[in-house]
Parts: sequence; C-alpha cells; structure tokens
Amino acid sequence: MISVNEKGLAIIDEMLDWEEDVKIESKVLENGATIIDCGVNVEGGYDAGMYLSRLCLADLAEISYTKVDLEGLAVPAIQIATDHPTIACMASQYAGWRIAVGDYFGMGSGPARGLGLKPKELYEEIGYKDEADAAVLVMESDKLPTEEIVEYIAKHCSVEPQNVFIAVAPTSSIAGSVQISARVVETGIHKLESIGYDINKIKSGFGVAPIAPIVGDDTKCMGSTNDCIIYCGETYYTVEDGNAEELEDFVKKAPSSTSRDFGKPFYTTFKEAGFDFFKVDAGMFAPAKITINDLKSKKSFTSGRINPGILLESFGIKNV
Amino acid sequence: MISVNEKGLAIIDEMLDWEEDVKIESKVLENGATIIDCGVNVEGGYDAGMYLSRLCLADLAEISYTKVDLEGLAVPAIQIATDHPTIACMASQYAGWRIAVGDYFGMGSGPARGLGLKPKELYEEIGYKDEADAAVLVMESDKLPTEEIVEYIAKHCSVEPQNVFIAVAPTSSIAGSVQISARVVETGIHKLESIGYDINKIKSGFGVAPIAPIVGDDTKCMGSTNDCIIYCGETYYTVEDGNAEELEDFVKKAPSSTSRDFGKPFYTTFKEAGFDFFKVDAGMFAPAKITINDLKSKKSFTSGRINPGILLESFGIKNV
Amino acid sequence: MISVNEKGLAIIDEMLDWEEDVKIESKVLENGATIIDCGVNVEGGYDAGMYLSRLCLADLAEISYTKVDLEGLAVPAIQIATDHPTIACMASQYAGWRIAVGDYFGMGSGPARGLGLKPKELYEEIGYKDEADAAVLVMESDKLPTEEIVEYIAKHCSVEPQNVFIAVAPTSSIAGSVQISARVVETGIHKLESIGYDINKIKSGFGVAPIAPIVGDDTKCMGSTNDCIIYCGETYYTVEDGNAEELEDFVKKAPSSTSRDFGKPFYTTFKEAGFDFFKVDAGMFAPAKITINDLKSKKSFTSGRINPGILLESFGIKNV
Repeated sequence: MISVNEKGLAIIDEMLDWEEDVKIESKVLENGATIIDCGVNVEGGYDAGMYLSRLCLADLAEISYTKVDLEGLAVPAIQIATDHPTIACMASQYAGWRIAVGDYFGMGSGPARGLGLKPKELYEEIGYKDEADAAVLVMESDKLPTEEIVEYIAKHCSVEPQNVFIAVAPTSSIAGSVQISARVVETGIHKLESIGYDINKIKSGFGVAPIAPIVGDDTKCMGSTNDCIIYCGETYYTVEDGNAEELEDFVKKAPSSTSRDFGKPFYTTFKEAGFDFFKVDAGMFAPAKITINDLKSKKSFTSGRINPGILLESFGIKNV
Repeated sequence: MISVNEKGLAIIDEMLDWEEDVKIESKVLENGATIIDCGVNVEGGYDAGMYLSRLCLADLAEISYTKVDLEGLAVPAIQIATDHPTIACMASQYAGWRIAVGDYFGMGSGPARGLGLKPKELYEEIGYKDEADAAVLVMESDKLPTEEIVEYIAKHCSVEPQNVFIAVAPTSSIAGSVQISARVVETGIHKLESIGYDINKIKSGFGVAPIAPIVGDDTKCMGSTNDCIIYCGETYYTVEDGNAEELEDFVKKAPSSTSRDFGKPFYTTFKEAGFDFFKVDAGMFAPAKITINDLKSKKSFTSGRINPGILLESFGIKNV
Repeated sequence: MISVNEKGLAIIDEMLDWEEDVKIESKVLENGATIIDCGVNVEGGYDAGMYLSRLCLADLAEISYTKVDLEGLAVPAIQIATDHPTIACMASQYAGWRIAVGDYFGMGSGPARGLGLKPKELYEEIGYKDEADAAVLVMESDKLPTEEIVEYIAKHCSVEPQNVFIAVAPTSSIAGSVQISARVVETGIHKLESIGYDINKIKSGFGVAPIAPIVGDDTKCMGSTNDCIIYCGETYYTVEDGNAEELEDFVKKAPSSTSRDFGKPFYTTFKEAGFDFFKVDAGMFAPAKITINDLKSKKSFTSGRINPGILLESFGIKNV
C-alpha cells in the first residue's frame, strides 16, 4: 500500500533544499518538529503553491499550471490528473481535519490525516490507513503552529513530535490560493460521496480550475478561492460502476449548479448567512462541471455549467 | 545516431520502479522477456498512458496533459512537441507492425520496429536503423503476449528473448486511449508520406488531441480514439522545403477533411464498410488541421478544420 | 542571494549532455570559452528554445509549451510562471546588452548581464549583482561569437575567457522564436519600469504568448516574434503596492494598445520608420494584456486587448 506520508516526506526534503528559490522558510521547533512557512511571514508564490498542492495530493497526481479565459481575461489556472483519486484526494488532500487548540485555528489537510484518520468514517469507507512514522500536514492558517499544536498533531498521528512536518499558508496568499484551486478534483469526489456515491468506484480524475487573486482578508479569499471551483472548476472522472442509470442520476446531482445557493459569489452567500457555515448549503462545494466515463457500462454523463461572470465578480478585477 | 531502443529501455526501467504508483504490473516470462501490463488485467490510467506515449515516441518528444473544449465541454487532451518527427513518430511510434501469431493479434509500435524494420521501405526512406541489443515494443492488444509472441519478436529484431520488453494496453483502456491520441503528430506525418511528401524535410512537430472516453469494446474504441485525431487533432510542423508551391498543395491534401469518409464517426464509416478496412478511405487517418511553416521559403500554410460536434457524437457523452 | 550565473551554468551542463537529442552543437574556442550553437549552423528546435528560455530566465521560472487559438488556428505557445520576476526577467532575461565588436553584432541577454551590470542603472534599481566566476550569456545573432567577442564579454564580466559560456540562436530560427516569446512576462515588467513603476514591488509574474513561425530574414522575424507579445501576449502579475489608485493608472498605461503604433504588424511600423528604431514608439514593446493583483490593497486591475487578426497578418499563414 502506498504511504502518503512517505510520499509527502520526499517532497518536504525537496522543499527544504530549495527554500530561497521557492521563497519559503523552514524552522525547527524546540520539540524537533519542522514548520515550513509558505506564505505567513514570507512571500511564497507559484512554486510554494505547487509544493503545497503536491503535498496535499501526496505526489499522486500530475499537477501543472495552465491558463483559463474568463470572458476574454486570461488568468492562471491549475490542472490536476490523478490515477489515485481516493487516496490522493480523500485520504490525503481533503481538508478534513479542523485543528483548534487554544486560540490557534487552522484547517489541516494532506498526508497526516491518513495517520490520524480524520475523519475515521471516511478512512473506513475507502479502506485506507497509513502507518508511516512521520506525519506531513498542510495547514491553511494565518499563523505558524506552535509546539503545542505539534504535540496535538503528533499525539493524534501516533508519531514523535520531531517527525512532524507542517507546511503552512494563509488562504489570502498566492500559495494558499493555488493549493485551494488544486482541490478541484477532490471537491467533486467529496460531493459525490456526500450524495451517496461509492467513491471507491472512481479510478481516475482530471480537472482544471482558475487561481484566485488575493481579494481581501482570509474570509474574503475563502470566498473567491472556492468560487474558482464552484463557478469555473471543470472535472472529468472515470469510474468502474456498471449501473449507468444510477450513475446518470449521481452526475445530475453533483455539480454546484444544483445548489440553492448557486448564482452569486460565495462570500455574498456566506455573509447573507451571517457567516454561519451551517446555514450555507454544503451542496455548493462542488465543481461547476462534472463529466464521468464509466469503464464498465461504457457510458458517459456530463452535468453543470461554468459561470465565468460570477467568478469575475468574485475576483473584482477592474477593467481600466 | 540516437538509439530508440536505448531510449525506450530507460523508460522501461522507470516504469518497473513505479508499478504500484502507475497501477501497472510487470512479469518476466520463462524465456526472460519482460511484459508490462498497462491495462489488460490492471487499471493503468493517465500515468500508464503517459509512459506508453513516451515509449512510443522513444522519449524524443515533450508530452503533457492539457484540456480542450468541445463545444463547452472540457475533456482531457494530450500535447506533443518533438524536434525528431521522423525518428520519434515514424521510426518508432507509428503502429506499423501487425503481429499475428496463432490466435494472438496486436498492433506493434514503438522502438522495436527500428530493429525489425517494420516496414522496411519506410526505414529505407528515412535512413534509420537501430542496432541496440534490446527491443522495446508497445502492443495495442487486449491480451498479454506469450513466450511464442516474444520469440517471434526477438527473431525479427535479432535480439535475445530476455532482452525483449513489451508494454501492453487494450484500445479500450485509459492508457490505450491516451497513447492513441498521442499519435496526433505522427498521423499527420504518415498522411503526408502517403500522399508523396518527402517526410525527411520535416524538422519539428507539435500537436494536440483530445483523449477519448471508453465508449465500448476495442472496435468501438478504435473509432472514438481515431476520431480524436480525425475530428479534433490539430498539428503544426516546420519543414525545410523551399518549394512553397508544391508544399501548399501537400498541405491542402493532408487533413482528414479531404477524405470522402469525413463527416461521421469513424465507427459508423467502418460499420458501413462491413468492418473491412480495405473499404475505408485511408485518407481519413489524418489530423483535422495541419499547419506547416517552411523554414526555407519562409511561407506557412494551413488546411482543415476541427469538428467537435462529430467527436461529441463519437464520445456519446450524455448531458444530464 | 541567488546567483543567476550559477543557475545558468547548471543548465549549460545539461545542454552539453544532450546535444544530439536537442539538435545543438557546442565547441570550445582556443581561449577556452564554450559556444553552444542553437540554430545558426544547426537545426535546434523546441528543446533548444526551451533551454535558451531557461538560460535567459536563470531557471527561476516554470516554463512550458501550450497552444493558443488565433481565430480558430491552433499555434504553439509558451507559458511562463515566475516567483522571481525582477531577478529572472530583469537581472537576467532582458536583452539589455548590445554587443557590437568589429562587424559582429548581437543582443546579449541572460545571466552574464548580472556580472557586467548591463545596464548599470537597472541593477542599481533592483539591487542585484551577481558575483559568480563564470558568465553565461544568450546571444540573439546569426553568427557564432569569436574569441574577440568572448574577450570583450569576459572583460566586462570580470571572468576568465574559459569561464564564458554563450548559447546562440538567430531571430529567424525555431529556438530564437521560442526564446523571444518567452519574454512575455519580462516585456510587461520592462514596460512598467519605463513608465515609472517601481518594479521591486512585483512579486510574481505569469504569462502566455504564441510562438511565431519563421516568416523571413532576421528583421522580418524580429517583427513577427515581437508581434506575438504585442498582439497576443497575456500577462498577470502580483505586486505588493498598497497605492491602488496609482497602480490603476500604471496598469492603464502599460499594455501595447496604448502606443500610437499599435494596430499593424511591427515590421510594417518599423519599415515605415525607415528601419530606424528611434522613430518607433518604445511603448509598443509591451504585452497585449496586463492584469495586476495587489497583495496589499487587495485590488486587481486589467488593461489591454489581444488582437489575433494582426498577429495572423504578421504570421502570413495562408489558409489553403
């Protein structure tokens, strides 16, 4: 079985070799843990964003920069192709570990989740468990984790603190923006899972999403980065299913456009909901377009539509 | 002179190192030959398809995944750039070796052809002959080759069976689908050769083609994969010619649209011809668009047109 | 501080290892300097063009081939993403060293400029100075440099002649065409600098530009290659500025469309000016579109428009 943390560790080694080039900065805490700042107190950038994306996906995807046109405006985008959709996206990339210790808060994603089994039911569903003795975590946060956070993570992952490696970038940073758009394939898988699809049937995933500019604080950027996927994320999966009729129904229900909140920038929706996540329709968190090819029934279905206009509204790029 | 088999061998080594990651499976036959299954009994996927494409092109091309839009539907695509169009595409990639031994059948492509000189006239035309002592072959087949097939190949390539390496994927597999679309530049060169152009004048090639979903059995997939090139394959060559008038004429005759069978999915044409290849116009097998820049006369010509509508019909992706 | 020449030297080593594959040819002059021909007496091609582009950018950018559509015609293009816009583009890539010794003439770009400080004011502005003991230069020229040229360069860079490495390609070669389009991000930075913007505020750059076919002699190709950037180059920068109002004004003035000479192929403009550079509006040399995201004010501005029609006129590709 592939160890997502071993994969992650190899990337960490590379990052530590290229700090100046990548405009990132590592430090070793007193308990021996390594923290790599990718955008909190340093500049970071596209390279740092690529490293974060590779970490999240445990190097089990081909990732490349590309461009997409939004009504004539070219913006940078990221493209993902993976043959390990459940391990790369769900066992590793999915931001499924909410880490709140004291006044520290961050969303944890990446390989370490496969040790801590966050959340457990998901790992049972996909039948994956990593047993590496090092934990590699990506944190979306505007603060660098302290020793206390490391101890918490180490304990949950059953590793020694000196074997904990955490790469961090805020939502409102280039690297942060990149690694969120790199979730386009994952977001589709997660949505399919949430509507009852057996995601173990998914054999490959491909997707492209624009990368958001920095539009404001972390909350505002959470809006624009998610909008990249919700309004312009395009995905393409292959599955081994066999039940074409049922699959058709899942595809129909999967894209973001099926949500009652579809049609305005996510930040607007979030604000209208009083910044209360429980009042926002979770069905929104899905790519704009989902296409699935079933290797068994040989049928393919597509659903959803991109909406560059709303994304441009979210980006707020003024034409001068 | 570049040895296409030595290039291929380096890729094989890499594949053997990454079997689990790439979802492929190798085995060593009793006669010592190595068979790498990329989609017959294993899943394979995009990575396996990339390896097959690199093998076919003897690593003499830059290959990357990209996306193309088919009337608003984003599908994965493959992009090729090569500075060795005749060696990479014709001496290696072209599926010019029909291997039928007993009840085994498969189309052989890739480096080994440069040892076996299949077909001989082509190698004479381009003045290439490999002399490596290992043979690397890509087989498009739904069966893994047996010892008997290996002996046959070894004999034709004048190598020992233990120095034969065969990577295999069926037409109706993701890896198979990828490696066929990766033939977009080759298909244009082959068409130019077939209408009498001296392909030694071709100095570089660039092309993009969508990747077909799995639409049915191998015959049906042969249709949809070829349609990727015929209806949406776009190519761009540089040549050292000097006779602009003659070149213009070749460009005019080269694209698939010049064929009498252009205008419907290839599978339909094939079916109407009673599945008899000799009744299908060979002129169909060409990219949809061909552009050529002549480094000598400094003139450029383009011909053909893409037809995403027919490709979508061929793919049969239902909008739900 | 990153040494652009050390970065360049690592690429040179790679090039020397792959001469046959890349269709380039090196020779060592009597004074020990290494000259790498990428298109003067050899074919060169896309790979050589990629190496030249990497040399120019001191390997501080992600560079990849892609395609762009010009009114339905797919042409190869190049994409750049860099987190070191001032060092990669201005301290290295910018063709700021006019080398004319005897009857030899060529535009020098790449790492060596960071030793010779060509031009000095620019290096003072960006606070960069390389101190490597090897000089790596890219020359756009139709002649290979002689010992005399090397002595001149060595002297200006304060290195020994045997530590001088020069890669050369004419404007009218594939490699030359590629390395010019690879200047799309640099051209925007240079234009911003020329209108008074403090380019040290620029933190990342992204851009795409088509690659020109060979349309004639070096002068004609200078036209078509520049048109790739002027009429279809699209760029996207992030800056740390904070003065959104002033930034908006800079963005407005930056794209090529603000030039009085915008609207016809550059060659035509140049010809009308009697091939006198001083009569051509320098403001033309800018990307067609410029978008800037300010990390401080969180505002984004875009300006300019692409004009594929003029680029097609410049390319002169005949539809047959």
